[in-house]
Amino acid sequence: MTHTTREKHKLLARVRRIRGQVEAIERALDAESDCEQVMHLIAGARGALAGLMAVVVEDHVREHLVDAEKHPGALNGEAAEQLLEVVRTYLK
Amino acid sequence: MTHTTREKHKLLARVRRIRGQVEAIERALDAESDCEQVMHLIAGARGALAGLMAVVVEDHVREHLVDAEKHPGALNGEAAEQLLEVVRTYLK
Amino acid sequence: MTHTTREKHKLLARVRRIRGQVEAIERALDAESDCEQVMHLIAGARGALAGLMAVVVEDHVREHLVDAEKHPGALNGEAAEQLLEVVRTYLK
Amino acid sequence: MTHTTREKHKLLARVRRIRGQVEAIERALDAESDCEQVMHLIAGARGALAGLMAVVVEDHVREHLVDAEKHPGALNGEAAEQLLEVVRTYLK
Repeated sequence: MTHTTREKHKLLARVRRIRGQVEAIERALDAESDCEQVMHLIAGARGALAGLMAVVVEDHVREHLVDAEKHPGALNGEAAEQLLEVVRTYLK
Repeated sequence: MTHTTREKHKLLARVRRIRGQVEAIERALDAESDCEQVMHLIAGARGALAGLMAVVVEDHVREHLVDAEKHPGALNGEAAEQLLEVVRTYLK
Repeated sequence: MTHTTREKHKLLARVRRIRGQVEAIERALDAESDCEQVMHLIAGARGALAGLMAVVVEDHVREHLVDAEKHPGALNGEAAEQLLEVVRTYLK
Repeated sequence: MTHTTREKHKLLARVRRIRGQVEAIERALDAESDCEQVMHLIAGARGALAGLMAVVVEDHVREHLVDAEKHPGALNGEAAEQLLEVVRTYLK
């Protein structure tokens, strides 16, 4: 993945938040918190991971399906956007 | 979607099977079949619908992200295949 | 599944709507509608099927996990509700 | 969640593996690994998290839907197993 520095920082911040969520699951299991709490934390981490995947898939579609330097304008932006809408629906 | 006649027939056969599966759910509910049976039928229809979506998304990626007549060779086949693998994982 | 007549009618109405959605997918494929339209219709049918599953699972949890005549009050309503919340999250 | 010590150790080992998977995503993003690698790692972490959720939901169904001391034998084991099968299908 080639990203601007700013994009990279955003992705890293996202994955670090997910690590924090997984650590919270670990603490909850260790403290024998009730199932409800644990299930809630797992569902939250799963949602965050799906959000990260959506961003990475989006980057992949925009940056790598077509080499924009060799083939400028070849990617059909509208078709790409329709695809990403479907992906987001399924990643929820 | 532009398809060869053969592809179109396969897609139609697929969606008709799904209609049959939904009709089976309807009959099971009408006959007050047990929950297990109904849940099993719904899970089957869901899987078949996910399979149909995977085929349509695959067509979309291969046919519409790049206009192959105007930009021959612009779609990175390997990157497209990686994307479709992720999509299939999430569509399961 | 044992249901009151009213519940049964609601479930049947739901599954008939889904059949209508699947028939719309069939017509769209037959008419060679564009991918976007087809993907949108499939995503809609999938959501409706997930909604039906959520209702059936809810019935199953409330009616069949415990035989309420033999064991009145044995089902922990709060724990059942927590379970159903998780199920709904994953069925979306 | 009340667990035997052995069950708790297994759950903790599972969540620690997931933390390791999330850390691998972080390293891959930091090293600007290619999208394919990152998407693969995210899909793996998602699968592992779904597996953890399945175990916790299973515990919840078996241990908390019915207070087995107050209502011994009230939970219909077969109905519970059917529910868990559906949950596992959707958690995949």
